[in-house]
Amino acid sequence: MPDTEQTQITWEENLIEAFLGMLHAKDGDLEGIAQLGAACRDPKSFEIMMEKLQAEPGAKEKFARRALLGITDFASLQQLPKQTFGFHYAEHMLGNGMEQLNVTSEADVTDDYSYMFAHLGETHDVWHVLSDSNVTIYGEIKVAAFSAAQIHTSRFWYALMAKNILKATVYNIEAGTDYLDAMSQGWIMGRQAKSLFGVDWREWWETPIDELRAEFNIVV
Amino acid sequence: MPDTEQTQITWEENLIEAFLGMLHAKDGDLEGIAQLGAACRDPKSFEIMMEKLQAEPGAKEKFARRALLGITDFASLQQLPKQTFGFHYAEHMLGNGMEQLNVTSEADVTDDYSYMFAHLGETHDVWHVLSDSNVTIYGEIKVAAFSAAQIHTSRFWYALMAKNILKATVYNIEAGTDYLDAMSQGWIMGRQAKSLFGVDWREWWETPIDELRAEFNIVV
Repeated sequence: MPDTEQTQITWEENLIEAFLGMLHAKDGDLEGIAQLGAACRDPKSFEIMMEKLQAEPGAKEKFARRALLGITDFASLQQLPKQTFGFHYAEHMLGNGMEQLNVTSEADVTDDYSYMFAHLGETHDVWHVLSDSNVTIYGEIKVAAFSAAQIHTSRFWYALMAKNILKATVYNIEAGTDYLDAMSQGWIMGRQAKSLFGVDWREWWETPIDELRAEFNIVV
Repeated sequence: MPDTEQTQITWEENLIEAFLGMLHAKDGDLEGIAQLGAACRDPKSFEIMMEKLQAEPGAKEKFARRALLGITDFASLQQLPKQTFGFHYAEHMLGNGMEQLNVTSEADVTDDYSYMFAHLGETHDVWHVLSDSNVTIYGEIKVAAFSAAQIHTSRFWYALMAKNILKATVYNIEAGTDYLDAMSQGWIMGRQAKSLFGVDWREWWETPIDELRAEFNIVV
C-alpha cells in the first residue's frame, strides 16, 4: 500500500514540523498553536478518544444532551459571591482580558464527533479554572497535563507537553524543575478527577468552587 | 558578539538534531543516546548542576571523599540474602544481561567536575534499582524523571523525557497514559527523596533495600 504509507509519513512529518515551529515561537503563540492543532487532527486518535468517552459512566446521557455553554455573560457572573465557580470563571476571563473562545451554536453540533470537538474547545477555560491553572507558562503546562490525563489520546496536549519540556531543555533549563512540577501536578490531578466531559457547567455557576472541585474529585 | 552568538546557535541546533535523531531511533539505541549526551555537554548547565550539588548538606565531605563503585563483583552480591540492596542490584544487572557501565579509576578523578561525571555515570543502574525502575521503556522513563528531579539542570534527562513524550504523541499515542504515569511517578519520587549524589553505595550492599529506600526517603 504505497499510497497509505506515503500519507502516514506526511502526517507524522507535519506534526513534527508544527512541533518544531512552536519550539521556536514565543509561549502562547496562537498561530503556532493553530498549526499544531491542525496537524493533530488524525482520525485514529479521535476514534480512540471517542470510544473512551463513550465508555464513561453517564456517557449516553451526555451525548444525548449535548450541553453547550453558549455565549456567557461574564459581567453577570462577576456579580456572584466570590466563592462561586461563576465568579472564579468570570475573574479568569475578564481579569486576563480574554474573550470566550470556540463558542458553537447548537445547529453546528450534528453528531457525537462535532459535539466532542465543540464541547472540548469551548470548555478549555473552565478546565483552567477548575484545575487552578493560571495563564502563565506554568499554568498552561499544568492544564495541558490535566487535559491529556482526562482525554486519553489527545496528540495535541501531548505535543504541547513535549514542546515545553524540550523548550526548557534547550533554552531555559533553570526553569525545568518548575515546569515538571507543574506537569506532574496537572497530570495527577487530571488522573484522579472524575471525567469533566459533557458536564453542563451552566448548572454550577452558583456553587462554591471548593464544593464543585470536591464533587469532581479535583485536588488542587 | 557575533562569534559567541554563532556558537550558541550551533549548540542548540546540535541538541535539537540529536533529539530528532533519537525520535526516529529504536528505544534504547545506544548510539543515539551517546550523540544526545555529547550534544548536552554545555558548560552553563554543568556549572549550575555543580553549584546545586555543592550546596547540598554533606557536600563538602562527599567531594572530599570522591567515593567510586569500582569494579563490582555481581556474582558475590547475588549470594547475599534476597532482601538486600546488593542482591537487588546484582539481579538487575545479571538478570538483564547488563555489563557495568562507566567504571572509572580513581586516577581519572582529579577534581569536582570529573568526580561528578564519573559518579553520576557509574551509579545510573543503582538509581534504577533504588527507584524500582525496570529496563522497559516505562522504567527508563521513570528513572529519567527521577534523575532529572535529583540533578536539577541536566539537559540530557530533560531531552529524554521530551523525546519520549513526543514519540508517544506521534507514534504511540495509546501508550501516552502509561508514559506519563511513569514520568510523574519518577519525578515525584526524585523530588521527595534525599539526594543520592556522592553516596558510597558499597557500604549498603547488605542493607535490606526497603530500609535503604526509607533512609533516603524513596517512596516507590
